[in-house]
Amino acid sequence: MKYWLLPDGINESLPAEADALETMRRELLNLYRGWGYRFIMTPLVEYLESLSIAMGSQLDLQTFKITDQTNGRLMGVRADITPQVARIDSHRMSMVEGQPNRLCYMGSVLRTHSEVAGGSRSPIQIGAELFGHEGLESDYEVIKLMLETLSVAGARSVLLDLGHVGVLRGLIAKIGLTDAEQAVYLDMLARKSLPEISHWIKQSDFDGASSELLSCLPNLHGGVEILETATQQLNKAGDNVLAAIDYLQQLITRLQKDYPELAINIDLAEMRGYTYHTGIVYSAYAAGSPREVARGGRYDGIGEYFGNARPATGFTSNLRTLISLSEDSVVSETKGILAPAIDDAGLEQTVKTLRAQGEIVVRQLVPLTQLSAEAQGCDRVLEQQSGEWHIVSAG
Amino acid sequence: MKYWLLPDGINESLPAEADALETMRRELLNLYRGWGYRFIMTPLVEYLESLSIAMGSQLDLQTFKITDQTNGRLMGVRADITPQVARIDSHRMSMVEGQPNRLCYMGSVLRTHSEVAGGSRSPIQIGAELFGHEGLESDYEVIKLMLETLSVAGARSVLLDLGHVGVLRGLIAKIGLTDAEQAVYLDMLARKSLPEISHWIKQSDFDGASSELLSCLPNLHGGVEILETATQQLNKAGDNVLAAIDYLQQLITRLQKDYPELAINIDLAEMRGYTYHTGIVYSAYAAGSPREVARGGRYDGIGEYFGNARPATGFTSNLRTLISLSEDSVVSETKGILAPAIDDAGLEQTVKTLRAQGEIVVRQLVPLTQLSAEAQGCDRVLEQQSGEWHIVSAG
Repeated sequence: MKYWLLPDGINESLPAEADALETMRRELLNLYRGWGYRFIMTPLVEYLESLSIAMGSQLDLQTFKITDQTNGRLMGVRADITPQVARIDSHRMSMVEGQPNRLCYMGSVLRTHSEVAGGSRSPIQIGAELFGHEGLESDYEVIKLMLETLSVAGARSVLLDLGHVGVLRGLIAKIGLTDAEQAVYLDMLARKSLPEISHWIKQSDFDGASSELLSCLPNLHGGVEILETATQQLNKAGDNVLAAIDYLQQLITRLQKDYPELAINIDLAEMRGYTYHTGIVYSAYAAGSPREVARGGRYDGIGEYFGNARPATGFTSNLRTLISLSEDSVVSETKGILAPAIDDAGLEQTVKTLRAQGEIVVRQLVPLTQLSAEAQGCDRVLEQQSGEWHIVSAG
Repeated sequence: MKYWLLPDGINESLPAEADALETMRRELLNLYRGWGYRFIMTPLVEYLESLSIAMGSQLDLQTFKITDQTNGRLMGVRADITPQVARIDSHRMSMVEGQPNRLCYMGSVLRTHSEVAGGSRSPIQIGAELFGHEGLESDYEVIKLMLETLSVAGARSVLLDLGHVGVLRGLIAKIGLTDAEQAVYLDMLARKSLPEISHWIKQSDFDGASSELLSCLPNLHGGVEILETATQQLNKAGDNVLAAIDYLQQLITRLQKDYPELAINIDLAEMRGYTYHTGIVYSAYAAGSPREVARGGRYDGIGEYFGNARPATGFTSNLRTLISLSEDSVVSETKGILAPAIDDAGLEQTVKTLRAQGEIVVRQLVPLTQLSAEAQGCDRVLEQQSGEWHIVSAG
């Protein structure tokens, strides 16, 4: 039995990494504060229903269950902070209708399985949410804050992958797919299995226009110019679909003006979060990470389970991912100053002053005096010269 | 079903409290850094054996168990970060014998039961540990750092309750109590049940000297002067007992010199942590808290389960307790500056500059313009005057 083995995907951080995480934490919380997003700390566990009610079965599968021994009820360890923040906006903060509420969060979450093979099951989830406003301004503000987050992290070659669940929802409603048909279609779409889709359409008895709509959607991904193609191919898909495409177009126009360097990709058949998202959905990619580095979208109405349905839009990321994005992320550890093990008021005062100035001062411990300053993490030592204490190089 | 109810003893923090916690977190991590204590982040869950091996059955009872679905093994949610830090010093950091290692930590823990009725089951545990040095210097350094921690938190009327498990251990060894006798004695001692102890001694067949030693120990608590009484009453208890008393006396002499204001209490029959502590043990109390606000002690050898037994001394506290100790802990929330929903390069630049200066700038959202600045958390607004953007009072 090796007592020091950690379970797969469970992270711990030694000093250099912990320092980088703490520095990034502070920079990001300062950023969010400056934008008016107030920091909240959500509970590590909640009753299971509270955690999973708003987010569907996927989150439930990801949640570790424990029994509250005081009353026998099932609790879950948080696997996603987003529904907790929605609960707090909806129920704890007494927001009135139409009053915007900007919140941000940062905390460890725990998942039964990693989203990808070999990935983490204990990310440090961070994010920001804007409640109480429905429309382009809030969606855009949150996307900008996500891009600022990536910029603080030193992310390079950022790509934004953008979709809108209104396209798929509107199309399904327009055609009038039954629940069973919808389940089959969504499943094939999620797997982007074009042959299956085309086979299924052929053997079903949709009319020509519906067949055309159903078969063109899986191909509507690519650069921003795909929106023009979409407007043509989906022009019989109804007002809601066209409004969603127009919404994306407006968003992109603003993004291209403010972030001319940003690469933008469109995927109108993006399925992720389809069950709870209600508007735009997006993921961000950056150099050095094989997977998305942040994601977000609109999810209006999530608060209804907690007594107050409110528009909501937000993004989320993982602090551990963010500290890996910068090219110069390898920081050398700061060295300290070694203070001798001497009981002297002047030395005591000098140590105090240096620490207040932000220096690291390590006290020598008797009888460990045979250890070099280097072995104690120091590159300088305090020495007394004609009654005064001076910093000299340890070399 | 009320989806917003939290389990008993599970905490969450709204903006004002979360701000106070974050501010205290930063101040304390900065303090520890200045003293050469490096920050590490321990895992939220580990295999159960790793968490409880070093700390005994009490911690095991406090630990929520979950099954790792990838391999069926039992994991525990951390209920105490201390053994994790010992594992990291012992196994992850390649320290050689005699090399001191100063570490600090801060993180949420979860406990099946609160230590006191109505108390928290989700403290934010903080602390510092010094590994690799055996002796007064390291014990004293850690106590000083605990007192500095309380000072940063604004604690008033601090009382230090001090003991040394060497007294009880030495006495038991000297008398040669059997395991059964020891269990009975420790149980009565933990309950400070003097009548039971005296009855038990009478009906046992200890010799006169042993009877005297066993009956005087429960009364050896009080001011620092009790150490003199102890030296007299326990002078036949053997060298180890007298050395422990002498150690406490040396520590107190230094404490009284450096902290003349500090109230010190002695309890030589203190039982807490008896199973894993190996030297001094202490708790700190402060005005405004009915219970201890920090505690610590020496626990040499804890690393042996992880392959490298090392001397260890440290203290621990709860960030939630610490933010409640200062008299002026009620902070008014900082108000922001409201920026109008206008697309203007000058405005954009002004907002950026103000945020970089640490101001909170909230962007007005269309069509929420009917909301007052106050309702959006702002006491000032940005207004354009002859082409320039100026901050004016919202009043």
